[in-house]
Amino acid sequence: MNQLWIENGTFVTMDESRPVVKGHMVIEDGKIAYIGEQPPQPQPQGAERINGEGLVFMPGLINTHGHAAMSLLRGYSDDQSLQLWLEEKMWPMEAKFTDDDVRWGTSLAVAEMLKSGTTTFVDMYDRMDIVAQVVEQSGIKGLLTRGVIGLCPPEVQDSKLAEAKQFVRDWNGKADGRITAMLSPHAPYTCPPDYIARIVEAAHELDVPLHTHMSESAAEVQQNVNDYGCRPVEHLDKLGFFSRPALLAHAVHLTDDEISLLAERGAAISHNPASNLKLASGVARVPDLLKAGVTVSLGTDSAASNNNLDLFDEIRLAALIHKGVSGDPTAVPAWEALKLATSSGARAIWKEDRIGVLKEGMSADFIALDAEQPHFYPQTEIVSHLVYSGSGRDVKHVWIDGRQVVKSGVCLLLDEEKVLAESQRCFERLLNS
Amino acid sequence: MNQLWIENGTFVTMDESRPVVKGHMVIEDGKIAYIGEQPPQPQPQGAERINGEGLVFMPGLINTHGHAAMSLLRGYSDDQSLQLWLEEKMWPMEAKFTDDDVRWGTSLAVAEMLKSGTTTFVDMYDRMDIVAQVVEQSGIKGLLTRGVIGLCPPEVQDSKLAEAKQFVRDWNGKADGRITAMLSPHAPYTCPPDYIARIVEAAHELDVPLHTHMSESAAEVQQNVNDYGCRPVEHLDKLGFFSRPALLAHAVHLTDDEISLLAERGAAISHNPASNLKLASGVARVPDLLKAGVTVSLGTDSAASNNNLDLFDEIRLAALIHKGVSGDPTAVPAWEALKLATSSGARAIWKEDRIGVLKEGMSADFIALDAEQPHFYPQTEIVSHLVYSGSGRDVKHVWIDGRQVVKSGVCLLLDEEKVLAESQRCFERLLNS
Repeated sequence: MNQLWIENGTFVTMDESRPVVKGHMVIEDGKIAYIGEQPPQPQPQGAERINGEGLVFMPGLINTHGHAAMSLLRGYSDDQSLQLWLEEKMWPMEAKFTDDDVRWGTSLAVAEMLKSGTTTFVDMYDRMDIVAQVVEQSGIKGLLTRGVIGLCPPEVQDSKLAEAKQFVRDWNGKADGRITAMLSPHAPYTCPPDYIARIVEAAHELDVPLHTHMSESAAEVQQNVNDYGCRPVEHLDKLGFFSRPALLAHAVHLTDDEISLLAERGAAISHNPASNLKLASGVARVPDLLKAGVTVSLGTDSAASNNNLDLFDEIRLAALIHKGVSGDPTAVPAWEALKLATSSGARAIWKEDRIGVLKEGMSADFIALDAEQPHFYPQTEIVSHLVYSGSGRDVKHVWIDGRQVVKSGVCLLLDEEKVLAESQRCFERLLNS
Repeated sequence: MNQLWIENGTFVTMDESRPVVKGHMVIEDGKIAYIGEQPPQPQPQGAERINGEGLVFMPGLINTHGHAAMSLLRGYSDDQSLQLWLEEKMWPMEAKFTDDDVRWGTSLAVAEMLKSGTTTFVDMYDRMDIVAQVVEQSGIKGLLTRGVIGLCPPEVQDSKLAEAKQFVRDWNGKADGRITAMLSPHAPYTCPPDYIARIVEAAHELDVPLHTHMSESAAEVQQNVNDYGCRPVEHLDKLGFFSRPALLAHAVHLTDDEISLLAERGAAISHNPASNLKLASGVARVPDLLKAGVTVSLGTDSAASNNNLDLFDEIRLAALIHKGVSGDPTAVPAWEALKLATSSGARAIWKEDRIGVLKEGMSADFIALDAEQPHFYPQTEIVSHLVYSGSGRDVKHVWIDGRQVVKSGVCLLLDEEKVLAESQRCFERLLNS
């Protein structure tokens, strides 16, 4: 039996019944077997022992929206209007992407995410077989989906959907269950209604959830009204989208009625504050969504519109901007912000029975931060410090299913030096081709 | 002659005429003697040589508003209304502060600032002799000021002002010029008009600049109108405040007329985005201030309302929030955001002839970041990466006046372990006394 015993650590559990535990945690066969103030009884024999002093342990972070391969385009186009950024910069470059680019762009993203404490991520892109291979190798967990754009001839629509379905059949549950899969129309404004309806039907057939971009910009909401006579939430509802478990990225522009309908349908939101600010999309109504009981999680979106994948940045932004914009300093308090990236993140991707909280029986996906730094002193309100002072750079060790994947800041299963060199090579070729 | 030669580095100079230089920099006797693509000619003999490969060099950051000692209160009260936070939490604790608390709270702040790349900071607090001692010892540069609150009997007003003036006489220009000083009425709402006028007079007498909090919250602006019949900018103008070089912290709530008047008077702003968001004060009109030609810089405010002193966080916030709130994705582009913390920061504190830009003749206040990390790849748009992906934790080395004060992430002139332990001890005593 594979055992790990962490002694004398501070554990931010995200378990509402005991948020912070100073004590011990025992991992057995990839799951948390014990967590408590007292040493485990009987003491595990032959367990690897780790001295937890000076470290803060917490659940691995969950990034619920992104496009990992686009890390190759980090900084390639900033401070532009969405239209110009997308049409003149992103799409032409992405059209040149090869398997190689997706492999190294995704590897770059996964290295950044692991090192900054993300243990599970959602990825919507294409060439997803390659993304899955990177997930398999790196030790991270991925909820993966081939995002399909339907603005194309019927036969291309068909082949994209077939590819998306085949990906689910090939990879759902693979890599010892670390890979799961879903289906994704890219967005209501990039997929005709009948195509969305076909994707919903396929999700039923394969029994997988749905993910899409929704109401990111005011313009796309207006276009939805012009084209279909209703706003995106109602539009998706009519197409049966919410008959499946559904995760909606962005959801910036919502009416009260839309929020109520989302709550009723049990849809989850991936709030992407940095990307929404950077592309000037606006500020999502997170306090209202939370009040309505909608599950809200956090996503970085891609490094092309963020431009980093450090989920601690999103946590802090979520805690700060809704106060500033609403004028209510009690909006999204620290504990709530931390939940968005952990326990709520798990709920948003239907894995709350396995990840997002440190308690007995849960998967041993957890991270350790170096707390012996000035920005974590005085060592009193550790939840506050994690939210308002913490950074992915404070993450020292990362375990997933009890297996250590980052040790002293270094990825154990990815060759970081090669990842950096190859991503540089790929970007330069893209730029010059 | 004390010489340092950095070879093969990437230099983000903040010099508009050549923003990024890949090459060499030579430091002589605390100043930049050479920066250029080619190796220096003649080659410096006997200089300490540093291999700059994999490092990004830039000017040390300038934090133009804060209260260092309050780092002791990091996380002590979050997610509260300003009134409750200030009156029930901060002020009662600060009333208990001793010399010891100011020493270790300030040391904690300075350690955090140095390690995260800040080389000059503005500090407004009391017991400023102790703050100056910490500055002297740690190697950082400080523009220090005894902030005076005038809501007290005349004799207390007198003694506070006398203390503030004496501090200027004792410390202005000390520590080889690393310490400069100014005078500060705490805020228009905490100082009667005649007291502000006396402080202005004293600033003329001592030939030093003025600093104050101004228009942080909508409520204080309204109070100013109620009490004095005009908004704070006009109020301060009438009191002669702008007859001195003036630095205004926050300046969140401004009318077009106030922005014009600030531009006309040449007053500088310390924009504190994280603190303004966290206390729900609002979002300053930075794009409009910049358009009007007002000098805008960045401040963290104290760790009690931020809760960290990493200026890279403020840089990123400044680049992100004004886009999101204005709806203009071109607002505060990356280069402009980086200027706020460097060249504009220097101008805001009247030191643009000495710091904030890497060029020949300037003081050798500079930092080196570890660029060999996933979030800085592909290595193309380094200014974008610094702004949107960079963090104080990426800072590896720091030099001030050519003297290295941080090496491989460790403060050379402060005993960090002692600083952490003492600040913990001080906070616990405050909490239990």
